[in-house]
Amino acid sequence: MGDSGAFGGIADVVGGGLPDSKVTAGSTALMIIDMQYVDAHRHYGIGAAGQRHGWTDDMEYYFSRLETETIPNVSRILDACRAGGIPIVHVRVMNLAGDSSDTSWRYKMMGILVPPGSKDAEIIEELAPRPEEVVLSKTTSNTFASTNADFVLRNMGIDTLIVTGVVTNNCVESTTRGAGDLGYRVLLVGDACAAWTQEGHDYSLRHLHRNFAIVKTTDEILEEIAAAIGVPRPAAVA
Amino acid sequence: MGDSGAFGGIADVVGGGLPDSKVTAGSTALMIIDMQYVDAHRHYGIGAAGQRHGWTDDMEYYFSRLETETIPNVSRILDACRAGGIPIVHVRVMNLAGDSSDTSWRYKMMGILVPPGSKDAEIIEELAPRPEEVVLSKTTSNTFASTNADFVLRNMGIDTLIVTGVVTNNCVESTTRGAGDLGYRVLLVGDACAAWTQEGHDYSLRHLHRNFAIVKTTDEILEEIAAAIGVPRPAAVA
Amino acid sequence: MGDSGAFGGIADVVGGGLPDSKVTAGSTALMIIDMQYVDAHRHYGIGAAGQRHGWTDDMEYYFSRLETETIPNVSRILDACRAGGIPIVHVRVMNLAGDSSDTSWRYKMMGILVPPGSKDAEIIEELAPRPEEVVLSKTTSNTFASTNADFVLRNMGIDTLIVTGVVTNNCVESTTRGAGDLGYRVLLVGDACAAWTQEGHDYSLRHLHRNFAIVKTTDEILEEIAAAIGVPRPAAVA
Amino acid sequence: MGDSGAFGGIADVVGGGLPDSKVTAGSTALMIIDMQYVDAHRHYGIGAAGQRHGWTDDMEYYFSRLETETIPNVSRILDACRAGGIPIVHVRVMNLAGDSSDTSWRYKMMGILVPPGSKDAEIIEELAPRPEEVVLSKTTSNTFASTNADFVLRNMGIDTLIVTGVVTNNCVESTTRGAGDLGYRVLLVGDACAAWTQEGHDYSLRHLHRNFAIVKTTDEILEEIAAAIGVPRPAAVA
Repeated sequence: MGDSGAFGGIADVVGGGLPDSKVTAGSTALMIIDMQYVDAHRHYGIGAAGQRHGWTDDMEYYFSRLETETIPNVSRILDACRAGGIPIVHVRVMNLAGDSSDTSWRYKMMGILVPPGSKDAEIIEELAPRPEEVVLSKTTSNTFASTNADFVLRNMGIDTLIVTGVVTNNCVESTTRGAGDLGYRVLLVGDACAAWTQEGHDYSLRHLHRNFAIVKTTDEILEEIAAAIGVPRPAAVA
Repeated sequence: MGDSGAFGGIADVVGGGLPDSKVTAGSTALMIIDMQYVDAHRHYGIGAAGQRHGWTDDMEYYFSRLETETIPNVSRILDACRAGGIPIVHVRVMNLAGDSSDTSWRYKMMGILVPPGSKDAEIIEELAPRPEEVVLSKTTSNTFASTNADFVLRNMGIDTLIVTGVVTNNCVESTTRGAGDLGYRVLLVGDACAAWTQEGHDYSLRHLHRNFAIVKTTDEILEEIAAAIGVPRPAAVA
Repeated sequence: MGDSGAFGGIADVVGGGLPDSKVTAGSTALMIIDMQYVDAHRHYGIGAAGQRHGWTDDMEYYFSRLETETIPNVSRILDACRAGGIPIVHVRVMNLAGDSSDTSWRYKMMGILVPPGSKDAEIIEELAPRPEEVVLSKTTSNTFASTNADFVLRNMGIDTLIVTGVVTNNCVESTTRGAGDLGYRVLLVGDACAAWTQEGHDYSLRHLHRNFAIVKTTDEILEEIAAAIGVPRPAAVA
Repeated sequence: MGDSGAFGGIADVVGGGLPDSKVTAGSTALMIIDMQYVDAHRHYGIGAAGQRHGWTDDMEYYFSRLETETIPNVSRILDACRAGGIPIVHVRVMNLAGDSSDTSWRYKMMGILVPPGSKDAEIIEELAPRPEEVVLSKTTSNTFASTNADFVLRNMGIDTLIVTGVVTNNCVESTTRGAGDLGYRVLLVGDACAAWTQEGHDYSLRHLHRNFAIVKTTDEILEEIAAAIGVPRPAAVA
């Protein structure tokens, strides 16, 4: 049956699920999800609110992982894609109206209001977009639900997405499910993502693999980028 | 923090997540997902294929649960909605072209080809649609990704969905995430769903609760229907 | 400037507008719009209502043209596509719920309610779909606005559409504009369409040419089909 | 029959077409389409290109009308909406990637490439957006085809659109058709629009009225705004 080691459901049932996919020159883009101050920095947004509420211990796993693993890995992939001419699509939570009235009902209920121009809307310094890179603003978990991502990617000739960012089992998973539904080959980079709990992160990757995506490591993706476009592999993070 | 007992992530972080929602007269619809021969009957489709491959033991949990819990519970809710005038939306896996060429890439890769007119495409006898009920045909996990569900529901004045069917952590979860993103209040009926494993089922409900939906039991939904529209509650399954 | 003979606007301004497109084997589909009893037969639907209201003279142009030109031409193209293996997509006005509640606000306001199973929903006998052909049901002018047409066509590998049917400056034009926006190469067959007035028909084709479509004749399309797929050209209508 | 004076087609056939609609406090937004340097200023973009090609006479009608009628009228409506708290949605042609690769096929074919940061992408000074106002960027004629306009407007609680801008029979008409299909009540302000020819402008308004929109004048809209929200009517343009 499938390669997940245990009976995992539909992917196992249907002959092993999705086939292998790889980075391809010309039709692959890198998508970086929600690496912004509202949720990817311990001193802003949710991080700052959590500190005020005394949830520091609960959040420590997430912010530690971000700082020591996720951000460095996304950064390595970003550098390799830029060097190799692979297009970058930055995705962030941001609404468009100054009063946040255009935010989705769900985000309103959760109090996730991120107006244009706010620090929360800004992508973290380490991964800041260059002017020529696409930036999409959403107020849903699935990027495709509240942006023109599909339209943009199709016009760019993209059929394969390297997916990275946060939060693994929320926006990353919803976007991966959404991309899979639309026929994109998703290369989901597990160690370039993070969730609020290790259990949630692990469960999500295990469920998505062969079902909506092929789960890979940062090292594997860097090798595929090098193979596809001939750039030398960047040095590993020390 | 949240009502899930343990730190569960974003719903906890943002003040408990989604508020309570209830069945409302006039703006609620029942959605029944993929209760059809290809995947909801042990002698057809995936069930039959599994038997040929010797996966009978792996699949026993799922088909037993379907027969003893899911189908009876969906049936009770369906009866109550019909009695109370709550609109029904049946969703099924089915493509539109006789050669299945219009099937999504992902379903093609998984070998899930369900042409019109096939037994696999038919909804199981116990839950067969009446001629006046909406039937949507999809080849994605998220119903909203490959049907006009959102258009149809908006025109009907629906903002709240009772969601039931299979498979909990695949099409039910993707559709629940999709509905939540679009602003629908989702009442996800845990004991009117089923997954290939109990673990997958439980994890999915736990993750979706307060995050994309409010998880309820069939008994709770039947009480809400009765309260909203004044029909007497049907007798419990013996 | 453009090839329309007079200054026609944006297509002229931007260097002549869209380039030539042709029928291509493997990536072209035939779309037939709204050739159904509600609006394409003088004794049913709008035709019958018009007779009751005494609009017979006003409607004579339209129904005459349908009977003597549009239906014969669509039929010739349909035959050639079937013979050549070019996929057929029939589009019709039809809602999904028995009470027509899922109809768009605009069609409700106009009284265009076409429930499933009604004679009005049926495609006229001369052009009746075969079981293996795709049939899409819509309650908007632009087919892409209320169906999964784009999803279906993309999965089928279609990038070029032969567009025929009625009404030229309403559903045909809205669908042609919609298809053009989505990047389809539209081959709009003028003499396989019809409008309520000759002026409306002519204006629409003139405006769409080089702007959203390439306008062709039935004879030209039949030649292109023959060239693309090697079928002999059917005899002209006597 | 309809109020267009002559038999105009479907709107006449179906009992007069769409009902009257008015500006409503709380659920109306102003949409301003493509009032930007690429196409709404004689010294930039298409205007400048036309001068180089010697099309000055052909373009004179359009730019004169813009300067003497369209811009002043849109400006009056914009002022009234700002004063009355009616939300503003600015729409412009702009792609997202620096190399314009995400532009639609049709705009690529027409050479309409408007990258972020370019002067062409900027909305003209007289109508410049305020930071709190929504700005949508598209590369299609129908705004809804390549932006999240529908998602944004729904979340804002908008069901009625005051539509203004250019070009009447291209982006304004496609967006009006698109909005009508989605159930928006469109108040199309004829003298706050402009087309490349008077004939094209007039034909478009006549066809859209009662069919996809209610066509109004700037004076009528200003009165409706005043009535709906109690602001005094601004002085007429001298």
